[in-house]
Amino acid sequence: MKIIDGGVTAAKGFLASGGAAGIKKNGSDDMAIIYAEVPCVSAGTFTTNRVKAAPVIWDRELVKGGSPIQAVIVNSGVANACTGEEGLRYCRETAAAASKELNIPESAVCVASTGVIGVQIPIDKIRTGIGKIAPSLGKGREDALKAAKAIMTTDTVSKEACVELTFSDGSKAVIGGCCKGSGMIHPNMCTMLCFLTTDAKISKEMLQKALSGVIPDTFNMVSVDGDTSTNDTCLLLASGLADNAPIEADGEDYEVFRAGLLEVCTSLAKQMARDGEGATCLFEVKIMGADTKENAKILARSVVSSTLTKAAIAGHDANWGRILCAMGYSGVDFDPDKVDLFFESAAGKIRIMKDGVGTDYSEETATKILSEDAILATADLKSGDAEAYAWGCDLTHEYVNINADYRS
Amino acid sequence: MKIIDGGVTAAKGFLASGGAAGIKKNGSDDMAIIYAEVPCVSAGTFTTNRVKAAPVIWDRELVKGGSPIQAVIVNSGVANACTGEEGLRYCRETAAAASKELNIPESAVCVASTGVIGVQIPIDKIRTGIGKIAPSLGKGREDALKAAKAIMTTDTVSKEACVELTFSDGSKAVIGGCCKGSGMIHPNMCTMLCFLTTDAKISKEMLQKALSGVIPDTFNMVSVDGDTSTNDTCLLLASGLADNAPIEADGEDYEVFRAGLLEVCTSLAKQMARDGEGATCLFEVKIMGADTKENAKILARSVVSSTLTKAAIAGHDANWGRILCAMGYSGVDFDPDKVDLFFESAAGKIRIMKDGVGTDYSEETATKILSEDAILATADLKSGDAEAYAWGCDLTHEYVNINADYRS
Repeated sequence: MKIIDGGVTAAKGFLASGGAAGIKKNGSDDMAIIYAEVPCVSAGTFTTNRVKAAPVIWDRELVKGGSPIQAVIVNSGVANACTGEEGLRYCRETAAAASKELNIPESAVCVASTGVIGVQIPIDKIRTGIGKIAPSLGKGREDALKAAKAIMTTDTVSKEACVELTFSDGSKAVIGGCCKGSGMIHPNMCTMLCFLTTDAKISKEMLQKALSGVIPDTFNMVSVDGDTSTNDTCLLLASGLADNAPIEADGEDYEVFRAGLLEVCTSLAKQMARDGEGATCLFEVKIMGADTKENAKILARSVVSSTLTKAAIAGHDANWGRILCAMGYSGVDFDPDKVDLFFESAAGKIRIMKDGVGTDYSEETATKILSEDAILATADLKSGDAEAYAWGCDLTHEYVNINADYRS
Repeated sequence: MKIIDGGVTAAKGFLASGGAAGIKKNGSDDMAIIYAEVPCVSAGTFTTNRVKAAPVIWDRELVKGGSPIQAVIVNSGVANACTGEEGLRYCRETAAAASKELNIPESAVCVASTGVIGVQIPIDKIRTGIGKIAPSLGKGREDALKAAKAIMTTDTVSKEACVELTFSDGSKAVIGGCCKGSGMIHPNMCTMLCFLTTDAKISKEMLQKALSGVIPDTFNMVSVDGDTSTNDTCLLLASGLADNAPIEADGEDYEVFRAGLLEVCTSLAKQMARDGEGATCLFEVKIMGADTKENAKILARSVVSSTLTKAAIAGHDANWGRILCAMGYSGVDFDPDKVDLFFESAAGKIRIMKDGVGTDYSEETATKILSEDAILATADLKSGDAEAYAWGCDLTHEYVNINADYRS
């Protein structure tokens, strides 16, 4: 596997573009289209929130039903959640407009939305937007970037990742994608919005298996604010245009594909955490020496979600008691008196706690380490071999600024 | 039942005081002593955090063992959590010092701590503090207030509540108390620190039953930041000096006592939420029309804990989608399309959502209602008769200020 520069158009068969459909008040880009030249096998994971946005209901039905997918229409102005029957009708009308414009079946069009909850989609602007943006679809690096930018809301940077795979027979394929997510990020089953494309030849069953297998260790381990969105959607489209032997069962080539997908999703998950609303740093938590992977994950996620810990990270304050506290209320049974805790960054590494008690560390060194823009806290439970990572960010004034008056 | 002015000394037999033992760097009051003239029946609830502070371990053993309690020594400078064997030894030494000073058995002394985690108690200062503060113990209103103030950390106001009960035979008793709590507040089994006293004659079994019955609907329904502390402790001492017929079983008098305790704990819980770190308002959430009380509680607590919702409240922004979103990820099964949502305060009441879809409400009116210092959001599920309340506060810059550098 090789990490390469690229996004949603890197795999054979995919075109993309983005632009302004006039949904966002400030006139910035708010619509992206991803288009495949051939019908694609699809896999998807969606929010577990009981309140599901209309596009989530629409896409889940298409993906589950096995309908070949050829386009995704995304708007980043209005969430189309809590919009009742009317909201669902607008999904259908969006698909109808794209079907006409792109000359593909309605059932080949996924839709996705992010933005304010409870407001109806301005369907006329969606129709106009599709007509305006579809003609500019392209395969270039800049076309992928346009799409990655157009799906942003409070994101400050676009998020893309791409790998090149080499299968057992020497054949190659690509997995690339983009995602957005900055607030209301505490994915459960997938991220806010993530669009992945590949040209690998792979069956629908194995594609979904790979995606469902990778999501729990990547996007589901990110938390910005503990709020699981109504719109979380991750779509993976496979054009099958690479020349690998079709992946239809477990085996070496499936593992190559799965490893590549894991790399892309891990990269996107970390980019999303780093760009959490108001964040000044990526806060990575590693739990090691746990008895089971599940327990390691629960512990890691509890620490990365702790409001108090995130505020301490914002202040470059080595207030490690909050980390142990967050582990303690996670629900996992562990022995606090065995825990070692380390802080690490580009500025160095220190052991801050040994066997459950603080070490005689230098506050100056700790502050220096915690002032970098990517910080790793590692807790070693010394009770087994299982480990897990979770990703979050610090909690700053800017988060409050952004969210105290998001709709204005 | 009559709500009266009073605190921890209002019930017959209780004295209190507070002062500076020199544990807090800034020299402000950091030690409180609550003393009973007679050995008391006790009840307690403690944190469920796997990481338990030493005083929690100490008190739980005393209360469970049925040891008559006559004093509580509280320090608000150092949490004495993550302090290993040494921390537990300091609890014993604190009890020994109080035993000598107050001429009561060591086993009659509960201890409680709140403050920074992972720092050892300066036991010499504790000893000196006990010697200094014990002689000033008094029964007056101002003595109760001194204790209530000395247990504060980032609290901005002291928190007391008191009721006078009238039993079936016309006899009277009092329940009074104080609590502290502002950050790391998401109690699970009880609040940060709460000390309740009563002169009612009541058996240990019924006392614990009343406390355990009331806590889940009061302190456990408060959240400031989702962080369940290592030190949560709620102690209830009964001197038995009132002239009521002893309460030893369920019945009319037990219900009188329980209702009084509920009133006191509800009042303290709301005071704690209102004084959440950085808070500018009390945010009360009511779920009604739920199928079960348990589901109503989970939903209420999910909304009141939602970071995004709390930030919207800080901005007086009627971003109701976040409330429905938080209900959606609570894990409770309900029909979003049946939900009505109301905002209410001293400035009025509006229905903001009907049958899961936003109403045509006035943003101006909504902002006015949300600008008061106590705000109630009510969600009606229209699916049953169960209801529950939860209490929290808004999320502001000041919360970040306080917690980014708490230890300095």
